[in-house]
Amino acid sequence: MTDFAATRRLFDLPEGIAYLDGNSLGPLPKAVPARLEQTLRAEWGRLAIGGWNRAGWMEAPARIGDRIARLIGAPPGSVTMGDTLSVKVYQALAAALDLNPDRRVILSDTGNFPTDLYMAEGLIRSLGRGHELRLVAPEAVAEAIDETTAVLMLTEVDYRTGRRHDMAALTARAHEAGALAIWDLAHSAGALAVDVAAAGADFAVGCTYKFLNGGPGAPAFIHVAPAHADTVRPALSGWLGHEAPFAFDLDYRPAAGVDRMRVGTPPVLALTALDAALDVFDGIDMAELEARSRTLSERFRKGVEARGLPLVLASPADPAARGSQISFRFPEGYAAMQALIARGVVGDFRAPDIMRFGITPLYVGEAEIDAAVETLDAVLTDRLWDDPAFRTRAAVT
Amino acid sequence: MTDFAATRRLFDLPEGIAYLDGNSLGPLPKAVPARLEQTLRAEWGRLAIGGWNRAGWMEAPARIGDRIARLIGAPPGSVTMGDTLSVKVYQALAAALDLNPDRRVILSDTGNFPTDLYMAEGLIRSLGRGHELRLVAPEAVAEAIDETTAVLMLTEVDYRTGRRHDMAALTARAHEAGALAIWDLAHSAGALAVDVAAAGADFAVGCTYKFLNGGPGAPAFIHVAPAHADTVRPALSGWLGHEAPFAFDLDYRPAAGVDRMRVGTPPVLALTALDAALDVFDGIDMAELEARSRTLSERFRKGVEARGLPLVLASPADPAARGSQISFRFPEGYAAMQALIARGVVGDFRAPDIMRFGITPLYVGEAEIDAAVETLDAVLTDRLWDDPAFRTRAAVT
Repeated sequence: MTDFAATRRLFDLPEGIAYLDGNSLGPLPKAVPARLEQTLRAEWGRLAIGGWNRAGWMEAPARIGDRIARLIGAPPGSVTMGDTLSVKVYQALAAALDLNPDRRVILSDTGNFPTDLYMAEGLIRSLGRGHELRLVAPEAVAEAIDETTAVLMLTEVDYRTGRRHDMAALTARAHEAGALAIWDLAHSAGALAVDVAAAGADFAVGCTYKFLNGGPGAPAFIHVAPAHADTVRPALSGWLGHEAPFAFDLDYRPAAGVDRMRVGTPPVLALTALDAALDVFDGIDMAELEARSRTLSERFRKGVEARGLPLVLASPADPAARGSQISFRFPEGYAAMQALIARGVVGDFRAPDIMRFGITPLYVGEAEIDAAVETLDAVLTDRLWDDPAFRTRAAVT
Repeated sequence: MTDFAATRRLFDLPEGIAYLDGNSLGPLPKAVPARLEQTLRAEWGRLAIGGWNRAGWMEAPARIGDRIARLIGAPPGSVTMGDTLSVKVYQALAAALDLNPDRRVILSDTGNFPTDLYMAEGLIRSLGRGHELRLVAPEAVAEAIDETTAVLMLTEVDYRTGRRHDMAALTARAHEAGALAIWDLAHSAGALAVDVAAAGADFAVGCTYKFLNGGPGAPAFIHVAPAHADTVRPALSGWLGHEAPFAFDLDYRPAAGVDRMRVGTPPVLALTALDAALDVFDGIDMAELEARSRTLSERFRKGVEARGLPLVLASPADPAARGSQISFRFPEGYAAMQALIARGVVGDFRAPDIMRFGITPLYVGEAEIDAAVETLDAVLTDRLWDDPAFRTRAAVT
């Protein structure tokens, strides 16, 4: 059994707040500053160019990829790191369409995170071969998979509602119909017991700055199923995905396996921060973490219900159908969230009316959930959002 | 006049070595560790999600882009930061081809850095519209520009020989022929008096871990000429290049100007290190820096000549035709470079026979140049490379 009081002590949390926004940006793991200082002073500072070999910088994407692989149920050697999630979506989608050249439909849902859809739009335009991005409601996805579907591209957990897709069932359905499946794990990795291998996902991508606590703008990951890894032709054929980057050949030849999904020079400082952050997960059982998250989000839901707060649950009522967050609809949600944050309960808001709370058991426990419910009660009872200070629209909260 | 002894004190240099590899990885600027610690502890640690607005993380790509703009002669607001150079090459090339849709030839040279060529290959395959990557010798580029050329894509300074293209003349020639010009400034930015505006470059891209000292894998930059900035259609249409990223619309609409070349979430930690590193350039006049580099590389060349060392100059003899490096051909170059490094003179080797020395006046002066020449003399005279320890092939030196 994990000691969640002990894992909480691994984080440098802002004082006096209940941080329920780890689904947007995970807090600072205490191990990060010293590790980064070490990389700066003892590696970059002392080894300079020699750091690429002597400090293992060049291998960091594969080594850290293996750490992520364990957390998402992927086999070792099937994940690499780098770039941003948007770029990894592009790589996965380009590769998947290339593997299924006779079909033209990319099927996704209206709950997908917009950048996945935007990247698909850009790719479709570049390809110029009549591909179509077909969006359906999340609950209509299974029905919509048919013999025209080239690729099913979904985010497992809806960033607004927390609704969780059945990855295994939808992937099986896609495969039956002759389609491939790409899963975006941005709101799953580090929070849920994901098993991409068992689900048979063809590609999986994700960011590492949410539940994995890698820091603002931390590098993304990509998993390619071993069956495809030596076959896919990279659209972003960069030198570090080359079979022999330091031969400086004029022609591209892809590296073996997932390494071909590397593009440019690895972001060593950002990878160092992520590597230190991942220590928090050493020995953590993801099924236990997921179960704990459900317990806590149920506590939140029941607390809101017990107090009769005028919030409408936006997340599925069944905790097994939710990711590691709970969301409520409230017409004055933006201003109410500002008032809540001012009182030390940090969630966030997503248009048009969603108040969103990340449930992160590694550093959030019953006390924070209870504080959140109680503060919500106070904010809503006193209509604190009527205060003009809380009504200003900000770009990010 | 710049006090180059003072700028040298801004770097944390490995002790006892002459570091002539800043054209591969710049050394650690002393300001970086404290600045990064501040971002970690006072921003990420205390503000958490609030850092995006309250610590200015979201605006960092534009703010730092303006600092780079000054160094490459680009107007404010025309440069943004993120991703790797390979990705920025892809973005620039996709945009340029889109602006010149009736032509099919991407013209480059055999001295270009391979990743630029690889990214072009991948893009051509994705586009599937019969584009051709035509490579000619560097000296044959001007001749090869014709009415079939869609885009001229060159790296200003050859990574092996240091041969510098005439950016203004070749860009003018490309424009006369109805082609666009993309310049890769990987080996120019932070070293030479680049003036992309005067040259009329349509796009410019570069990395920041060489002469700009941003750290291993530091973020890349892209400049789009103002005439194109509101017209180009991004191939990598990510959410942070959207007109309103936090509206979370389902459809992509590009942001105004160069901001549309942003893709995913900005790499805040890496940008912080780069930002601190750029302080070194405050008040530096790039023309003076370039002149100083020429003086030093001439000193190197003359020293080698005066000692009659059996090295063949691989760089142009005219210092105005060189970038900020000097290279020599030597059949046993790999092993000889290993012997040199073991004696504290750090240059590097590029196949098949190039010994390469970066000339970086911010922290390299006459003493280092003289030490390099003297050590080269000792290594070559004593045939130190015959020692088996220096003959092992390493991936990166």
